Amino acid sequence: MIECVRPQLDAVETLFESELKSDLACVNTLIRHVSRFRGKMLRPLLVLLGGKACGEINPAHTVLATVVEMVHMATLVHDDVLDEAELRRKGATINHLRGNEAAVLLGDYLISHSFHLCSSLESQFASRTIGQTTNQVCEGELLQIHNRNNLELDEQTYLQIITRKTAILCAACCLLGAKFAGADDATVENMRQYGLALGTAFQIQDDILDIVGDQTTVGKTLGIDVNKGKLTLPMIHFMRTAPREHRTLLRSLLQGRDADKVERIRNLILPSKSVQYANDRARQWVDTARAALATLPKTEARQTLDAMAEFVIERPM
Amino acid sequence: MIECVRPQLDAVETLFESELKSDLACVNTLIRHVSRFRGKMLRPLLVLLGGKACGEINPAHTVLATVVEMVHMATLVHDDVLDEAELRRKGATINHLRGNEAAVLLGDYLISHSFHLCSSLESQFASRTIGQTTNQVCEGELLQIHNRNNLELDEQTYLQIITRKTAILCAACCLLGAKFAGADDATVENMRQYGLALGTAFQIQDDILDIVGDQTTVGKTLGIDVNKGKLTLPMIHFMRTAPREHRTLLRSLLQGRDADKVERIRNLILPSKSVQYANDRARQWVDTARAALATLPKTEARQTLDAMAEFVIERPM
Repeated sequence: MIECVRPQLDAVETLFESELKSDLACVNTLIRHVSRFRGKMLRPLLVLLGGKACGEINPAHTVLATVVEMVHMATLVHDDVLDEAELRRKGATINHLRGNEAAVLLGDYLISHSFHLCSSLESQFASRTIGQTTNQVCEGELLQIHNRNNLELDEQTYLQIITRKTAILCAACCLLGAKFAGADDATVENMRQYGLALGTAFQIQDDILDIVGDQTTVGKTLGIDVNKGKLTLPMIHFMRTAPREHRTLLRSLLQGRDADKVERIRNLILPSKSVQYANDRARQWVDTARAALATLPKTEARQTLDAMAEFVIERPM
Repeated sequence: MIECVRPQLDAVETLFESELKSDLACVNTLIRHVSRFRGKMLRPLLVLLGGKACGEINPAHTVLATVVEMVHMATLVHDDVLDEAELRRKGATINHLRGNEAAVLLGDYLISHSFHLCSSLESQFASRTIGQTTNQVCEGELLQIHNRNNLELDEQTYLQIITRKTAILCAACCLLGAKFAGADDATVENMRQYGLALGTAFQIQDDILDIVGDQTTVGKTLGIDVNKGKLTLPMIHFMRTAPREHRTLLRSLLQGRDADKVERIRNLILPSKSVQYANDRARQWVDTARAALATLPKTEARQTLDAMAEFVIERPM
């Protein structure tokens, strides 16, 4: 499906590695650990397919796709400081290999290189867009830790958090892809809407998996949200709709320190309608994303974007 | 002395605050803690005086001076994750107020806003320079933690660490100040050399104070380098020149966990020639910095830059 941008995707891999190379051996050793975080290349794909769906892609798209992947990697590396995750991508994390300090610095190294690489483009447009985006990503993360252990968190605030911390970067990927392919303003805005909706669906699904997914299948530590006191959509819905005694139980489980806390919350929520509610909301966002593609010419790239929107909510549990 | 750039310095304060303002109350609450880190505004002064000494300063200088202060603040905030310092600027740190996570995110917020603000300038020159600079700052920090507890650290590697982590940002400040005042290439290069030498002297002096300074006078936690296993110039010289039994004692103190470790190392090093050696090296860098100003017209700004070079090694012990 992604064959139409395969050469560019390979070029992103190459540029990613060459940009991070240092003349200091100790830096290169640390950077090698970044590869453990490499995933599905969702964000580079959004830039490349977003461009391809709107016109022709050019060398700037490779640069931009590399930039957004670096930004994303930086958030993952810094999340490791935040989340004390024990597994990610089925491997040891930077954090556990070298301590919090290395994780902070490696994340900083990635974010610095992403901005520097972005500044190599001719116009300031991309730098401004990326800067604006990362400003909001930080705000989303800050809003999230501000609401830690807030058992009254409402759906609106939850949506604000995931919009800023996840969806806005996906929106920027699509916007930049379209803009640098020479798309008109209306098309650029449609692509931005597509990315925003896709990113929102993606994060809702990620949060569902964190509660009810299978650790082996998903391939990273689950139950992180619960352990970190982050209420996500299934729990928010549960706190709004479940019978009083179930709500009281969830409250006390979330506030407690039981060893089998995650397991017990999973078993409490699974039989309720709350996971289905969250699935439905994710589905709505997928539909919104797909609708935003309507005016694009019917190309393989558009078809792939369409399929990607479905894919984000059909990941294995 | 800094009166010739006072209006611009005030404008930097204003821009700094307005740029960091968020529409989220919880972000603003956290940002308020940044003011605890605000210091002597050394880096903004280098941009403004560097510009003024080469010609006229313009609104771009205010932007650039704010950008470099944000970059510097970000490193201080992230250093707090790194260094577990208990005091800085005589106040509680973000880290101790809100935990490591808030410190990581607040630092990210600052670095993101610095790049975004920088991208508001017309040309990419500043973005490229700042990106290149922060790449190297990260490398310096990574090289430093790589050499933690390396009791064989040599002077050359020490110099490489402090050049990257401190001096290069000062160099960039002066370079940008000169460049945006329309200075010719030779002058821009001289200003860069001035900043590089001043920054190096500043960091050597900072490291001396960390061992032999008085906590009340200096106004931040001292002995951090020792506690974090960072060898600095006085210790490096001591390990090279002191009598064998003194070196053995320093080695065992550095490797041990005595409660009065910092005090004992201080008492061991003070009577030696190693603090004087480090002072002499800092003095040489100050002379280099001042020499780089030679071709500038004799203005109040140049005079202030000259005095600043002296000031960095004459801070109260």
